[in-house]
Parts: sequence; C-alpha cells; structure tokens
Amino acid sequence: MTSAVDFQSWAAPRQSRIETVLDRVLPPTRIIPERLHSAMRYSSLGAGKRVRPLLAFAGGELFDADLERVSIAGAAVELIHAYSLVHDDLPCMDDDVLRRGKPTCHVEYDEATALLVGDALQSLAFQLLGEYRLADDPADQLQMVKLLAIASGSRGMAGGQAIDLQSVGAKLSLPELELMHIHKTGALIRAAAVLGARCGTNVDAKELSQLDTFAKFMGLAYQVIDDVLDAEAPTATLGKTAGKDAQQDKPTYVSALGIVESKRLAEELRQDAMRALESFGSRATRLRQLADFIVLRQF
Amino acid sequence: MTSAVDFQSWAAPRQSRIETVLDRVLPPTRIIPERLHSAMRYSSLGAGKRVRPLLAFAGGELFDADLERVSIAGAAVELIHAYSLVHDDLPCMDDDVLRRGKPTCHVEYDEATALLVGDALQSLAFQLLGEYRLADDPADQLQMVKLLAIASGSRGMAGGQAIDLQSVGAKLSLPELELMHIHKTGALIRAAAVLGARCGTNVDAKELSQLDTFAKFMGLAYQVIDDVLDAEAPTATLGKTAGKDAQQDKPTYVSALGIVESKRLAEELRQDAMRALESFGSRATRLRQLADFIVLRQF
Repeated sequence: MTSAVDFQSWAAPRQSRIETVLDRVLPPTRIIPERLHSAMRYSSLGAGKRVRPLLAFAGGELFDADLERVSIAGAAVELIHAYSLVHDDLPCMDDDVLRRGKPTCHVEYDEATALLVGDALQSLAFQLLGEYRLADDPADQLQMVKLLAIASGSRGMAGGQAIDLQSVGAKLSLPELELMHIHKTGALIRAAAVLGARCGTNVDAKELSQLDTFAKFMGLAYQVIDDVLDAEAPTATLGKTAGKDAQQDKPTYVSALGIVESKRLAEELRQDAMRALESFGSRATRLRQLADFIVLRQF
Repeated sequence: MTSAVDFQSWAAPRQSRIETVLDRVLPPTRIIPERLHSAMRYSSLGAGKRVRPLLAFAGGELFDADLERVSIAGAAVELIHAYSLVHDDLPCMDDDVLRRGKPTCHVEYDEATALLVGDALQSLAFQLLGEYRLADDPADQLQMVKLLAIASGSRGMAGGQAIDLQSVGAKLSLPELELMHIHKTGALIRAAAVLGARCGTNVDAKELSQLDTFAKFMGLAYQVIDDVLDAEAPTATLGKTAGKDAQQDKPTYVSALGIVESKRLAEELRQDAMRALESFGSRATRLRQLADFIVLRQF
C-alpha cells in the first residue's frame, strides 16, 4: 500500500504535466479553423490515464532524462494514441459512441471533423519531435522521429488495426492474437518507453534493448488486461462501451483462453517484463511500479 | 514549344524517379498486413502528375541539391498528398468514387482500409524524413520535419479541409476563398518547394523566403485552375468526377468570379509568382517552366 501511495505521488504530477504540455501545444480554439481545434482539444485533454507518457517518464529515469524533454516526447506519443482512438471509434471502424466517459469525437462533432482531428493530431505529434530539443545530438533525435513513425504506421499501430479488421469473426490462434497486439497496442507502448529513455544522457544500446523487451511484454499484458476488463467491467467504470469485443465477434484473449487463463497469462507477462529489468536495480523502480499499476488496474 | 519539350525532358526522369522511390519505400504487398500494404500502394503508385515532387526538384536546383535527397523529400510530400486524397474521397468527406482514373481507395477496398491507408501514408512520410539523410546538418533536417508537420496539420492542409467543410453552401468572399486554399492546397505546395530547396547546400534564408512567396502564389494559381478544370473539363480527361464542386454547392473561384475572371486571376497569380523569382536569374528556369506547366495545363 505504501508503494501504491508512493507511485501515485510520482505519477500524479507527471500526468498533470502532460496535461499542461498538451494544452500548450494544441492550437487554441479561437484560432481558425475553430471547430477543428475545439474537437482536437476535446479528444486529447482532460481524460485518459496517460499510461504511455508515464512509461516515457519511467523510461527516462533510467538515463536521467530531463523532465521537460520527456514531457514533449510523452505528449507526442499521447497525441498519436489520441488520434488512433478517434479514428478507431469512427462508424467504419468500431462504431463506438462512448470514450473516456464522454461521447466519441464523431458523435460530439461529426464524422468528417473526427477524421480530420485524427489526421491533424498525428501531424502535431511529429511537429513536436521536430520543433523541441529532445536529445543532445540532433541526429539521435531524427532516429526518434523514425522510431515513432514506424511504431505508428503500417508495420506498427495502423497495421495492427488492419490485422484486427481482417480478424473479425475469425478464430485466431494465440500466436496470431499476439501478432495483432504486438502491432496494435504494443508498438506504441514500446515507442513510449524507448523515446522517454532516448531523451536521457549516456543512453546505452544494450540497456535500451532490455527496456524495449520490458515494454514488449508490458504491451501484451496491457492488452490481455484490456480484454479481461472489456468482458468483466461495467461500462460506467470502463468509460467506454463494455462487452463490445464479444458483441462485434472480435477475437480476444478472453475468447481464446477464458477469463481465468487470461489473468494467469497477464501475470506471467508481468513477470517476464520484470525479468527484463533485473540488471537495472533501483533505477527501474518506477518501471516496476508502472507494470504493477497496468496489470493490477481495475479500470 | 522548344521550352515545353525541354521541360518534359527534365520532368519525365524526375517523375519516374519519384515513382521508383515510392515503390521502394512503400512496404511490399507480401508483408503483413497484406491488404493494407496493397491498398497503400494502390493509392500512391502509378498515377498523378507528381506536381509537388517536381516543385521540390525545381526548388532544389536553386541550391544544387543532391538528387537522391530531393527524391526522398519529394516522396515524403507526395505521400502526404496521397493520404489526403484517400481521406478526402471518403463518404464522410467528398464521397467520391473516381480518382486518377481509377476507383477511389474505399471503393476498391473498403472504408476502414482507406482510413488506415491515409493514416499509415502520413506516418510513412515522416518516417522518410527521420530515416534518410537529407541535410548536411541534422538540426536543419529536424526543421524540415517541423515544416512538413505544420504544413500537413490543423494550421495547414488538414485545417484547409476543415475550413472547406464549414464552407459548403456558404458564399465566401475572395479573401475567405484565399484563406481556405492557402491552407488546403497552398501549405503543402509551399512545403514541397521549400523542402526541396533545404536539401541543398548554402541555403540562403532570404532566397528561401522568395521561393516560398513564389510557391504561395503558385499554390493559389493551381487551385484557381483546378476550379476552372472542374467546371470545364470532362470526367474522362480529369481522371476524377468533374462538376463535383457545383454539385456539392462548394464555393470555388468559378462560382465567385466566373470562368473568364478566374482564368485572368490565374494568369495574374502566375505573374506574381514569376516576379518573386526575378533575382534568381537562370537558376530558377525550372521553377518558371513549372509555373507555366501548372497554370497552362489542360488536365
């Protein structure tokens, strides 16, 4: 319990810092086109657990990263995440009406605006990586641009969505499910941790790869838990429509393994993730707490 | 006539070079997710006048830019352009079925795939700017990332689309029309010319600004001509559905000024653009030819 309190006192100021950065970098509503800017802010601000930015902060602590730099990198990843939620909720995708306890963007505004919101949030993410100084060596920062782009694109998150689309109604094997989620959620989660770390100094390639392994397991654990919550939690707690997966006949860990086995798998993945951190010692305290937070979360 | 032949012999190898680069950087269809990669290639390859890459090449010639570098920068801009066409054609936007003489992406594939195609093409554009060496100084290249992101986002192209959406059925004044097009088409056209130039060496800030002014006028001229062609040309020549603007009650230069005045305006803008190039002398030959090509084109 002490540890949970301690984690919250670490996480809370960082979550609010991300909120501040997002508020600062998103164009104000009074600027043309007002409706688009209003919808971009609606879809990015004031909600969300900010798991990816927290991973960036925890990754950054491995290499004493400057807090302001990590805030920008974390905000960039969060903008990509926010754009993907807006597009996923569109009628031609998951057709969802509720997100983070509010009407989805296309319900609150309209479909065309939601499409442009996603497009413009993606651009803004890359603008941040070009505009602010995040690494001592600008050549390293270009690598960060490349990393986020690959994680977001057809070999990463957007590709995971495409695999997801193809899988509706299909019975996937466990390796196929994994492949889908390594793309769909995993790529961006890994990018978050690694980008945070790359904001640091004296970044070691081998340690970066261990961090990446940690994040890979955590990304899968995150998804397994997401599937469990979708099957178990009520809509009000979830902040999005519960039971959608089964309703849309989507392959999930729960449909493949059942709830009990899914929870066991999540715990196994959490332990795999922890093992990847062994050599870090106390430098990885926040990463470990974050792993617990993600796997043991109730919402 | 000699000049037109000469221009074609300059443009043709560059257009085919862009085709080659796009073919190389787009993931092959055999890679998972196959359908997404197939749709990305369908939407980017084998068609289009490649006006933006040509502007990048012509801008690059002002500062002796390396051809390979400009090819990558030009391909990045073209990927952004291709993504915007795919999203613009979606049912919730212009709802168009024909593009570059072929069924639009969502007609040939499906809406969800078309959405992801656009998303992933945008990511790929930024991947190119992070992955390849385009400027001697990586810090300059980060500025290029920022420039393309701003040109693509809510204060650029996506913002122009949003203004366009808000304007359906409205009667816009000429300054309002200009504001829309400076965002919608102009931002990316300017980015193309300037990014091409920034691939060069000893890039002079004042000259860069003159080039930007040229591209600003050209972007507007391009749009005026587009409106004229939409009103005048048959669908078969245009490669996209003709007469859509009037049908959708969109404000255009033709609806605001009529065809004769629109043609006069395009010519005036072409002359404004030419004036911005005066101090360049023969270094700007290709830019001048390109301006003629754009304004005097018949399709």
